[in-house]
Amino acid sequence: HSIKKLLQQKWLIVIFALMLTGLGAAITGVFFKTGITILDNWRLNLLATIPPWLLLPLIGACGGLISSHLIARLSPAAGGSGVSHIMAFLRHRSVPMGLRVGLVKLVAGIVAIGSGFPLGPEGPAVQMGGSVAWKMAQLLKAPIAFRRVIVAAGGGAGLAAIFSAPIGGFIYTIEELLNSARPVVLLLVVVTTFWADTWADILQAIGLDPSAGGFDSSLGFQVQREYSPLINFFPIDLGYLIALGIIIGCLGELYSRYVLTMQNKGRAWFGNKIRLKMMICGALLGEIYAFLPNEFHQITELKKLIANGSIDVSMASTIFIVLFITTGLATASGAPGGLFYPMLILGGSMGCVCGHWIEILTGHVPSTFIFAGMGAFVSACSRTPITAMFLAFALTKNLLMLKPLLIACLTSFIVARLFNEHSIYERQIELDLSQ
Amino acid sequence: HSIKKLLQQKWLIVIFALMLTGLGAAITGVFFKTGITILDNWRLNLLATIPPWLLLPLIGACGGLISSHLIARLSPAAGGSGVSHIMAFLRHRSVPMGLRVGLVKLVAGIVAIGSGFPLGPEGPAVQMGGSVAWKMAQLLKAPIAFRRVIVAAGGGAGLAAIFSAPIGGFIYTIEELLNSARPVVLLLVVVTTFWADTWADILQAIGLDPSAGGFDSSLGFQVQREYSPLINFFPIDLGYLIALGIIIGCLGELYSRYVLTMQNKGRAWFGNKIRLKMMICGALLGEIYAFLPNEFHQITELKKLIANGSIDVSMASTIFIVLFITTGLATASGAPGGLFYPMLILGGSMGCVCGHWIEILTGHVPSTFIFAGMGAFVSACSRTPITAMFLAFALTKNLLMLKPLLIACLTSFIVARLFNEHSIYERQIELDLSQ
Repeated sequence: HSIKKLLQQKWLIVIFALMLTGLGAAITGVFFKTGITILDNWRLNLLATIPPWLLLPLIGACGGLISSHLIARLSPAAGGSGVSHIMAFLRHRSVPMGLRVGLVKLVAGIVAIGSGFPLGPEGPAVQMGGSVAWKMAQLLKAPIAFRRVIVAAGGGAGLAAIFSAPIGGFIYTIEELLNSARPVVLLLVVVTTFWADTWADILQAIGLDPSAGGFDSSLGFQVQREYSPLINFFPIDLGYLIALGIIIGCLGELYSRYVLTMQNKGRAWFGNKIRLKMMICGALLGEIYAFLPNEFHQITELKKLIANGSIDVSMASTIFIVLFITTGLATASGAPGGLFYPMLILGGSMGCVCGHWIEILTGHVPSTFIFAGMGAFVSACSRTPITAMFLAFALTKNLLMLKPLLIACLTSFIVARLFNEHSIYERQIELDLSQ
Repeated sequence: HSIKKLLQQKWLIVIFALMLTGLGAAITGVFFKTGITILDNWRLNLLATIPPWLLLPLIGACGGLISSHLIARLSPAAGGSGVSHIMAFLRHRSVPMGLRVGLVKLVAGIVAIGSGFPLGPEGPAVQMGGSVAWKMAQLLKAPIAFRRVIVAAGGGAGLAAIFSAPIGGFIYTIEELLNSARPVVLLLVVVTTFWADTWADILQAIGLDPSAGGFDSSLGFQVQREYSPLINFFPIDLGYLIALGIIIGCLGELYSRYVLTMQNKGRAWFGNKIRLKMMICGALLGEIYAFLPNEFHQITELKKLIANGSIDVSMASTIFIVLFITTGLATASGAPGGLFYPMLILGGSMGCVCGHWIEILTGHVPSTFIFAGMGAFVSACSRTPITAMFLAFALTKNLLMLKPLLIACLTSFIVARLFNEHSIYERQIELDLSQ
């Protein structure tokens, strides 16, 4: 009721606040992606002159130090993925919010991921969107109920802007963050997420990301398809997708446990010395990646390789193992970066591996296996199958993909849930609370 | 909590019940469409030998009599649109449910719409889906909370099957029927609606509707695009779509009031004599349509004409006026048929008319105007903007359509809401209650 009252009294200001929240989420999201790309390219260019075993650990250590210094000095709440941060706020925990957290997250995240921590931009995007929204709600002197809604919508808007997935961001806000579907809440959320996605398209087009295809000044908005695989979906695929979901559900739960164990170990060994932790971790990660093929030096390239289906099964297995180990290490260091992106890569590479063996065994493999693996892995860890379906869908924007994705995501969700009732983020919140 | 408990104890039976509900919704939906098509073709064939002024009123009167006799004799609750019926059940009103209501609705609806009542299949589809679901819940001896969820999911499944719109059916269940977004509820609903849409594709392909393209036995599932217009979306379209939304918001509210007034008048004049009411109304409708061009003799043809943009402004105006008047008449008679379909046609024709004049005035018109008009009209009457967006989207399955649709649907929703807080269905429920 307090939301309806606010809307009746200050509807123009509310609309304005939502628009600014969406725009803020889009700007920070696009800056984040662009910053990482610039640092990545700089690092890759240096590789031409300096040997990797020297360069990568050095950059990793420096990046870890700078990033952790920013966090420790300016805003300790800006460490980690960011998703659990917003979730904790929405569950009425006392969590520092505001523009400072968002800005520190932006810069520290760019430095960490750009210097080689294999993490993704979506956790920080959710937190940055939520932080902008929180500031808006504060300026509006909004009641608590509305503050919750706008922070959740801001988080979803960040996700929508990063993945070019307005439906995904909308569903994420409803399924994971709010658990509410009052009509007025749905409307506020849908406006914010679609608005953020629109701005992300425009901002990318006016120069921040020349490769983006979401907006063209003479053709207008475009449907931006990151990948256009040739796919089909037969009734027989049902059994195959369920089998994939079962495998990925188990692996996803294993991954969640490994990441949480690493985070625990990181805290037990280093305590609050986040600078030392991130510096050592950055050097270690750089050293590991130095001995891997060139494709591994940029995490965005890995996703492209897998989604295009242009790798063989041994490469896919290597990617799975390397990312499984190193992303746990990166998360343990407390580096600001998200896990959705690594999860997509892990799931995609496992889909590729499983597809290879299942085809040998049975003579058939669904053409949707790689993307289904991506969605299923996210679903197994985050326990949000519908969001996972729409996020993986947003990579191809092919509607035929929805049902195979739903089957795999649902199965992996159910299987993972048999092992443990809580998502990786809920367990992270519990971990934070216990310390 | 009772839902989770039920899932833990009888998860296999629950899944089975959801599957059967989705299948039931799909079967009844596909039967409904096929039955109407058969009757329509029979009537059109007769027109070649018998003059329309004699034939159409005769068929209308007979159809009205047969349909109303079935309803009065077997299940009085099977009259009307069906949407308000399910909504009333979900608001804890005592409403007759069960397979008998669903079956009578199916047959009586085919007879009425097939004999010339200009109504749509989606209201009956929602009610039939809900009825099947209710039976499932009864067989399961499910607790009340789960009964509500499965009935709502069945209603959404009916909508998904009829419109080939799984996302639309899913959002409809959440936005209009349940107002709940607990994760477990979202999952149950998404499974039911997507499953129903899948079965609708398969059933249509195995012979019930040869024109359907949702499934091909050698190519697998296909994205079934009813219309493939060439559209684009420019930032400047924003203002145009808001203007359209304002016009359609006013017209939609006018339409709601007209339909409700007619319903009131029908009851005041005829009381419970539904046979007399539907017979006279059928004859009257037949007489009106007899003096209209051939295109008007089949309501599905009208939608095609408009959606393809192949009519001029005078034809579009005629369609708007004729359907505005006659659908109110048909609803007043208590005939079993839905209003979404007429609303889509009314909105589309108004989008066409507005587009014509706005282009003359300003030299530009968004290419999305016709479909935006469709969504906006549904949104203005049903007050479910997000559902309206996804239903109109399902006609083209072009993702570029989503944002223009959202703008028009939101605007018309807000404008219509300024006149009256309640949707046409909520007012119908109040009307039923007051008598």
